[in-house]
Amino acid sequence: MTKNSLTFFLGGARSGKSRLAQEMAESQHGSLAYLATGQAFDAEMADRIARHRTDRGPRWRTTDCPLDLPAAIAREAVLGNIVLVDCLTLWTSNLLLSDADLPAAQAALLAALAAARCPVILISNETGLGIVPDNALARQFRDAAGRLHQQVAALADTVFFVAAGLTLRLK
Amino acid sequence: MTKNSLTFFLGGARSGKSRLAQEMAESQHGSLAYLATGQAFDAEMADRIARHRTDRGPRWRTTDCPLDLPAAIAREAVLGNIVLVDCLTLWTSNLLLSDADLPAAQAALLAALAAARCPVILISNETGLGIVPDNALARQFRDAAGRLHQQVAALADTVFFVAAGLTLRLK
Amino acid sequence: MTKNSLTFFLGGARSGKSRLAQEMAESQHGSLAYLATGQAFDAEMADRIARHRTDRGPRWRTTDCPLDLPAAIAREAVLGNIVLVDCLTLWTSNLLLSDADLPAAQAALLAALAAARCPVILISNETGLGIVPDNALARQFRDAAGRLHQQVAALADTVFFVAAGLTLRLK
Repeated sequence: MTKNSLTFFLGGARSGKSRLAQEMAESQHGSLAYLATGQAFDAEMADRIARHRTDRGPRWRTTDCPLDLPAAIAREAVLGNIVLVDCLTLWTSNLLLSDADLPAAQAALLAALAAARCPVILISNETGLGIVPDNALARQFRDAAGRLHQQVAALADTVFFVAAGLTLRLK
Repeated sequence: MTKNSLTFFLGGARSGKSRLAQEMAESQHGSLAYLATGQAFDAEMADRIARHRTDRGPRWRTTDCPLDLPAAIAREAVLGNIVLVDCLTLWTSNLLLSDADLPAAQAALLAALAAARCPVILISNETGLGIVPDNALARQFRDAAGRLHQQVAALADTVFFVAAGLTLRLK
Repeated sequence: MTKNSLTFFLGGARSGKSRLAQEMAESQHGSLAYLATGQAFDAEMADRIARHRTDRGPRWRTTDCPLDLPAAIAREAVLGNIVLVDCLTLWTSNLLLSDADLPAAQAALLAALAAARCPVILISNETGLGIVPDNALARQFRDAAGRLHQQVAALADTVFFVAAGLTLRLK
């Protein structure tokens, strides 16, 4: 992993992608910045978020950025930290639910990634490999996430498809 | 890509498979035939179909064949064109919704592919990697599509799994 | 395949994973034990189960073990048979629906696999690559299955991702 490398872990739910991304970050020297996009809408999610934070341990500093992820990446990049973004799926979903300008936000993210002079590791869920969802918002989400994945992957140095805790290298 | 090669791009929604397939076709000399199986049932889909047609540009000649794909392939093969089929998912779905004889149609498709003396590139959505769908028609679709994918892949010279605009070679 | 090798086929619905697993087992010398976790809740499933049993042919001895899979593996291991488990997805689903102690059952399975002195081939459906399911039980299932896949894959000698009847080697 070089100074400004970009690594992208794309996988299913419970595929182990967060663990793999964290292990990659922890194998590096330097301060570890965890940019968390998850929001606790209910007890199930609050539980999961709290458990994950405990599991990561004290070496990580966590910043919540459900919406303003590009600015958070820019701030960490100035500090030269190793940045882990977990995850693009929830960020996209938060933007859709908040009626934000999604194309503008995605462009800002790509600009922040291209400008970052620090290692960045991104995690996202692949959600496009099931049956077409009945509801229009889910289809809109799936399209927005898929397009973002393509753009991030085009920018990334290394892209992994993750299943069962193991990786297939896409790039 | 040889004279009668068969290439199969299998991937998720918004995975970039159509773009990759089109780039492969456009890298060849020869006339380009786009066999479109999509039908516009609503404004969302009409929009998407029109946008895609514009994006492809004037080098492509598009034929709509929501149901009679085998005959369309046979016609193009006689002309010696480079054929791109986009996509098997919608074709399967159209057949199911029109109460056609699906096994007979799938057998006719495989026969047309085996007989074609021109390069054919096929695109399809993998839809079997999510939770089992609640509704019986969706399960029937998923089974029919999965079986067809296996048969097309067995016949193909090259098969790619597509995610995030990148490929993993299955065959 | 060595005496106590563990092979894991993970793929989508109708991806051909059962056929590939059966062919691998049939290419070996020795008795073939098929551990079936499927239960026929309706005519659709009863049909599918009966058809699969006929397709396998007389070389296979089938044992139904919708819940007590670890004990069934232990019994076959004593006999030195080649064991095929089809599949972990249905087993997980059966456990959830019967209000069993799922973590205890998963631990017992991993212990049985680690102790087995016979070739074991496991099949499971990847279900985490679609849209987040609406219903809480489906999410719980998806999480439980994903965690089990990671643990089985960690223990396995060989892991394949299956799509369109073809394999990508994860491990």
